[in-house]
Amino acid sequence: MINENFLKLQAGYLFPEISRRIRSFQAQNPDAKIISLGIGDVTQPLAPAVLEAMKKAVDDMGSETGFHGYGPERGYDFLIEAIIENDFKPRSVDLDKSEIFISDGAKCDTANIQEVFGVDNVIAVTDPVYPVYVDTNVMAGRTGQANENGQYDKIVYMPCTAENDFTPELPSSPVDIIYLCFPNNPTGAVVTKEILSKWVDFAHGNKAIILFDAAYEAFITDRQIPHSIYEVEGAKEVAIEFRSFSKTAGFTGLRCAFTVVPKQVRAYAKDGGAVEVNSLWSRRHSTKFNGASYISQAGAAAVYSPDGKKQTRRIIDIYMANAALIRESLTKLGYGVFGGVNAPYIWMKTPKGLSSWDFFDILLQKANVVGTPGVGFGRAGEGYFRLTAFGKPADVKEAMERFAAI
Amino acid sequence: MINENFLKLQAGYLFPEISRRIRSFQAQNPDAKIISLGIGDVTQPLAPAVLEAMKKAVDDMGSETGFHGYGPERGYDFLIEAIIENDFKPRSVDLDKSEIFISDGAKCDTANIQEVFGVDNVIAVTDPVYPVYVDTNVMAGRTGQANENGQYDKIVYMPCTAENDFTPELPSSPVDIIYLCFPNNPTGAVVTKEILSKWVDFAHGNKAIILFDAAYEAFITDRQIPHSIYEVEGAKEVAIEFRSFSKTAGFTGLRCAFTVVPKQVRAYAKDGGAVEVNSLWSRRHSTKFNGASYISQAGAAAVYSPDGKKQTRRIIDIYMANAALIRESLTKLGYGVFGGVNAPYIWMKTPKGLSSWDFFDILLQKANVVGTPGVGFGRAGEGYFRLTAFGKPADVKEAMERFAAI
Repeated sequence: MINENFLKLQAGYLFPEISRRIRSFQAQNPDAKIISLGIGDVTQPLAPAVLEAMKKAVDDMGSETGFHGYGPERGYDFLIEAIIENDFKPRSVDLDKSEIFISDGAKCDTANIQEVFGVDNVIAVTDPVYPVYVDTNVMAGRTGQANENGQYDKIVYMPCTAENDFTPELPSSPVDIIYLCFPNNPTGAVVTKEILSKWVDFAHGNKAIILFDAAYEAFITDRQIPHSIYEVEGAKEVAIEFRSFSKTAGFTGLRCAFTVVPKQVRAYAKDGGAVEVNSLWSRRHSTKFNGASYISQAGAAAVYSPDGKKQTRRIIDIYMANAALIRESLTKLGYGVFGGVNAPYIWMKTPKGLSSWDFFDILLQKANVVGTPGVGFGRAGEGYFRLTAFGKPADVKEAMERFAAI
Repeated sequence: MINENFLKLQAGYLFPEISRRIRSFQAQNPDAKIISLGIGDVTQPLAPAVLEAMKKAVDDMGSETGFHGYGPERGYDFLIEAIIENDFKPRSVDLDKSEIFISDGAKCDTANIQEVFGVDNVIAVTDPVYPVYVDTNVMAGRTGQANENGQYDKIVYMPCTAENDFTPELPSSPVDIIYLCFPNNPTGAVVTKEILSKWVDFAHGNKAIILFDAAYEAFITDRQIPHSIYEVEGAKEVAIEFRSFSKTAGFTGLRCAFTVVPKQVRAYAKDGGAVEVNSLWSRRHSTKFNGASYISQAGAAAVYSPDGKKQTRRIIDIYMANAALIRESLTKLGYGVFGGVNAPYIWMKTPKGLSSWDFFDILLQKANVVGTPGVGFGRAGEGYFRLTAFGKPADVKEAMERFAAI
């Protein structure tokens, strides 16, 4: 017997559907040189310090003494320690090694974390939202059927539009789990400490847990914007944070990320007893996962070396220059443009009230440029369109010229 | 609210508990040189062909043109094609590329596969069994509470002992999902095509699905023993097969494996409609996973090169020589010994009716040798003990000398 919840899922996960349309267009137009500013994938070669560390790791694997078999499921101390020292200590966030779980991706972690919570939990997500948060809860049976807008019964959707500056309102009905992502994918919005504080207070007041996706924190340029939710007082009791090397250091093809689960985070059993979420996640992690690749972890640790820091910073600067170019070009052309200042995503209004998918098709056909339809991220994303700053600079420049010629 | 099913889980996953006892012993006996024949982890350096391919892959990641971002969630064609050509075609098993899913480990795959089936499904497992199959179903809510033997209500246990040659009987009550692992972990037992045929027939007759863990197929020496369940007629309609590069090619620290889900495998919805399990798994895989490391996949593909084949074969031969030495030494010492001929695991009776954990402690204290208590794999494993052939030859030799001196 199948898991019937899978039958509730709406047609095709967003990116496979985009791939299908691109393949179909390319088959009919074999000479078209398509530029993708769609899926959020990096394009710059890895930092030399990372390459060097990985080559050394490969050498290790070929020697009697350096060979590494199964690593610790939670990851190697050399990486965990570098993370604590570099990502958190400078922001006055103290973490213990047992609070960090290295993994093979933030997609996997944000997909899997729901397993430690009951199926009766009510989840709240922003709208638009990264589809993985929603789909994994559908699969787990935490939702009812979808309505004609693709919204599932039992999920609390928090609309984020230009009208509220892409900042969600606190839910008015009780919720157990809140997914927040800042800098946001797909809107590129960020929040201040003050706003995050409201969420932390809400979680405290409602015995709710915040799942904070900080995969894009490295792109923050404004010094006032927090990189970690733990910069907010009281967050350690109510928040789990997800980080990744994918965008920070170009690791999308290498697979290395991590999740922070402070020991203080508690969830409750039906009998009212408090349970450490850290120990639940630890059990899940050690039962269903077998550690990230040693080579990827060695590469990730090198991101924190003095050279690694400089080199990865330089790569991020390239992407943020792309973001600035996209913002300026589209603004000049009269489009409504958001994001792209503290995030690698630019969120634009479609022109002339076009639907997101209609604009996708027009852009693909007329400019041979691929973006992501806003409605693919949720109902409130209808009429918006996402562009990413991860292209090669020459491609981004050309894409902007083609936009101008539409 | 937590997932209450986690509270049903029995104390500590097996291997963390072993690690705890080793750490405790080592703290009290800092000079003891412990030899581990416990956890099934490889020790030989990687094959040179694999190292070379991975170095080239690292170079790719450092160049504009060779850089690889997100790979296909299902894995790169270069690896999928090598698998089909080398692992299946020579055994007259035809598979389509869409039937292979590359992943980061067979542990993960055998842990995650249950998600596509309903929570009401009844699962059958051998006893002893690899704990991951059971624990993941407990977490998902497919079981009741555990009894005093650690056996969960609603699971059908199929005892495998010396009395039935470690071959399970067909279940006498209806089951939906059957986990089989041959060559078996932990017993080292294998089955003939005739026996596997009975299981395939049973699955056909009962609309059941077989989850066939073939992670140790590379260790089969007897030409009559099937490497894949698909060598049995009719298996493609009812069986999913799990493979791994972990033991075959020493990839435990690199993370690369794959799952075969033939298009013909069907499971049923409550309304009686048949659903392709391949499409369910594909949806799960693309929603919760983001591909295995490009470097690991490049290394895995090199396992199939002419040099890679020869070199990995040589490594397997080293382990199988260990297995033979363990078998012979322990047999000479009067122990009851099983497995170790077509598998890297030796399954022995504990002497003098000792419990598995008592023998574990004695062996650790008297010989400073670590094995795995049979009861850790299930009630029917009580009074047995698992040794693995994955040690360094010199260590295995010394461990056998220490056994002789107990």
